[in-house]
This record gives sequence, structure tokens and C-alpha cells, in this order.
Amino acid sequence: MRQKTVCILSGGMDSTTLLYHLFDLGDEVLALSFDYGQRHRKELEYAGRTCARLGVRHTAVDISAVGGLLKGSALTSSGIAVPHGHYEDESMRLTVVPNRNMIMMAIAGGYALAEGCDRLAVAVHAGDHAVYPDCRPQFIADFEDALRSGNYGQPSVYAPFLDWTKSDIARLGVELGIDFERDTWSCYEGGEEPCGKCGTCVERAEALAAAARERQR
Amino acid sequence: MRQKTVCILSGGMDSTTLLYHLFDLGDEVLALSFDYGQRHRKELEYAGRTCARLGVRHTAVDISAVGGLLKGSALTSSGIAVPHGHYEDESMRLTVVPNRNMIMMAIAGGYALAEGCDRLAVAVHAGDHAVYPDCRPQFIADFEDALRSGNYGQPSVYAPFLDWTKSDIARLGVELGIDFERDTWSCYEGGEEPCGKCGTCVERAEALAAAARERQR
Repeated sequence: MRQKTVCILSGGMDSTTLLYHLFDLGDEVLALSFDYGQRHRKELEYAGRTCARLGVRHTAVDISAVGGLLKGSALTSSGIAVPHGHYEDESMRLTVVPNRNMIMMAIAGGYALAEGCDRLAVAVHAGDHAVYPDCRPQFIADFEDALRSGNYGQPSVYAPFLDWTKSDIARLGVELGIDFERDTWSCYEGGEEPCGKCGTCVERAEALAAAARERQR
Repeated sequence: MRQKTVCILSGGMDSTTLLYHLFDLGDEVLALSFDYGQRHRKELEYAGRTCARLGVRHTAVDISAVGGLLKGSALTSSGIAVPHGHYEDESMRLTVVPNRNMIMMAIAGGYALAEGCDRLAVAVHAGDHAVYPDCRPQFIADFEDALRSGNYGQPSVYAPFLDWTKSDIARLGVELGIDFERDTWSCYEGGEEPCGKCGTCVERAEALAAAARERQR
């Protein structure tokens, strides 16, 4: 049976691959993006172009007033520098936006209910677990319990990449025909070109390199 | 030890009593209200005046763009009439805003984390259970699990009225010195005067009458 799914889409590698995956499954997909005052708001343009390419309905919702409440993260506070390195590094804690995933997933859950969707899809993956507790399996399971008990048992949460590495996602994305350079944006800095040094630039480059190596084998 | 608490404040009877209760406990309180495009936005003025009276820091956050996604409720859609009667009536399902409490509690949870608060307080009570699943004990327990697993174990959720009737709340409010007529707004219609017929007007009148009867005994 064809499922109707809300996909949270940032415009980065992971959620763009998730959108292509849902499209490939034949789901009726509604994509939802968030402007929460992130420096790298540029990612939203990529999200919009991807949806236009696939013919998917795209909604970007402005919750920048909420972002204003969530001080203390390098992603939303211009006074805090974006740290360089890997997600495992202690400095990456600076990129945690308090409760960000729960806020986005709660809003997306309400949108899914209002639109009569069966499920809500999120692109959290194992590479995020080190620094972001709201990407871990325990959070996703607890969130789904809360979402369902708060809403007469609906909708479900679909997180197919939960135990995948970012390289696994890159490989699937290439298989599904995504041109990551052209179609996605990751850099936290939000400049004209990717900085190449922040956590998400580093993780992205490594994942793409690993996926490319595997394809050459 | 003095706790630091975020209180979700609508400006109605229940959350105003909760705010007074926290103030009475000696908590350091931050009050948070939401403009989600509700017809009865007037309640926010009452919330602001109550905070000014108590000297509590008050923040009203505009999530009306989110309200625009949550169609299908009489509280946010001008095309759907507000039903009359009691919360137990089937027609009251029309006043359910999909996932409303989870959205507000998720944002308040992020705010609590950003402000270094110990807990998040919500005024859900037994009178809400019939029609609103996101006011039931199971939802509150599941939500707290998700909030904590997503954020390194913090903050907790304080819902002291969870098993109380609205009359119990009215009685406590009177004891704490609240003048409900002057200090709170409930009516869903959001007109100049309360309509007296919608679910929340009916429940409010009955609770105040019951509390007054008990005081005369």
C-alpha cells in the first residue's frame, strides 16, 4: 500500500537521500524544512530545488522566533564560532541546539496528522550519535512513543538510516542518482562556498570519499 | 533547594494557577506563552499582565507559521465553528490542534535547557483527559522520557495537576489569591466577552461554581 509520509528535509546529504529513498519507494511525500535562524540557512534553497526537481510539495516553516530562545549554540548564535573537526570531538558540543530534533519532529508530527499522513520520516544516522543525543535510537523510540500516545496512536516514525554510517547514506544517494555537490548543502558556516573545516564539512568529505572508493572496487 | 523552572502559560485558569503555585513554592520561574494563531489570542494579554503582577520574566513566542500547518481545528481555522458543550462531547474533537502540547512542550524544553532550568512545568489536568490525549498521564510520561533521552537526561517535567479536576485547580487558585475573573481568560471564541457556551467557558464556570460551593461549607 502506498504510504503518505512527511519528510523532514534540511537540504543536506542525509535528508536529501531520505527524500530520494521515499520517492523511490513510491510514497506520497510532503517535505518540510525549518528556518530556525541557522547560519547556514542557505541549505533551504537546496531543499527547495530538490523538491522542485522531484515534483514534491515543499513547505518551509519559519520558527526563527523559536531559534531566538535557544541560545548557546554555534549554529544559532553569531557570537559563538563554529568549531572545526570531527563530531566525536568535545568541541562539537557547541553545535548542539537544545532539543532541536524534538522541536522539529513535534511540528512535523502535527503537520503529518493535519495532512492525514501515515508516518514521519527523519534522516538521523549513526554518525550523529556521538555528539547529538537527539539522534540516538533511544530518543527516536521514546519520541515515537510520545507522539503516538499524544495523538490516538498515529503517526509512526520512519528512521531507516538510524544504524547507518554517513558513508552508507552517500552510497545509497549515489545509487539513487543524487549529485551531492550540485544538490545538497552541509557547511554550518553558511558562506558562499563550503568552509571545508567545520564538523559537517569534514564528515561530508569523508563520507563522499569512502563511497567513491567503494564504487571503484 | 530553589528550582529554576519554565512554566508554559496560556493565560487561562489552569496555567495561571500553576504559575502562582510555582511562585508560592519559591521557584525561579520563566513563563513562556505561545501565539500559534489561536482565535483566543486575547489570552496572551492576560498572561502578560499576570507575569507583570508577579514580577516574573515573560516571553511570548510567535509560532503562528506552525499554527498555519495544523489545519482542521476550530481553534486555528476560522472556517470551523467552535463547538458548544462539555469536553466529554464528541463535538469537542474539533478543538484538538494536532500535537499541540508536544510542540509547545518541546519548544519549552529547549528554552529550559538554554536557560539552565531544572524543569518544565505544565498545567495539564484530569478534566482535559477525555478529549485531549496529549494531556493524559501516558503522554506526559512518554514525553518526559523522550525529552530526557534527547538531552543528556535533563530537564524533568512537573505536572502537579495531572490527576486533579478543574475544581481542584480553582480551589487552589482562590487560596493563592487569584481573581479568576480579572486575571484569566479562557473562552475559545476570543471575542470581547466570554461566549459562555464553548467547552472551556462551560468547564470554567462549573469549576468556579464548585470551588465557591466548597468554600461556603
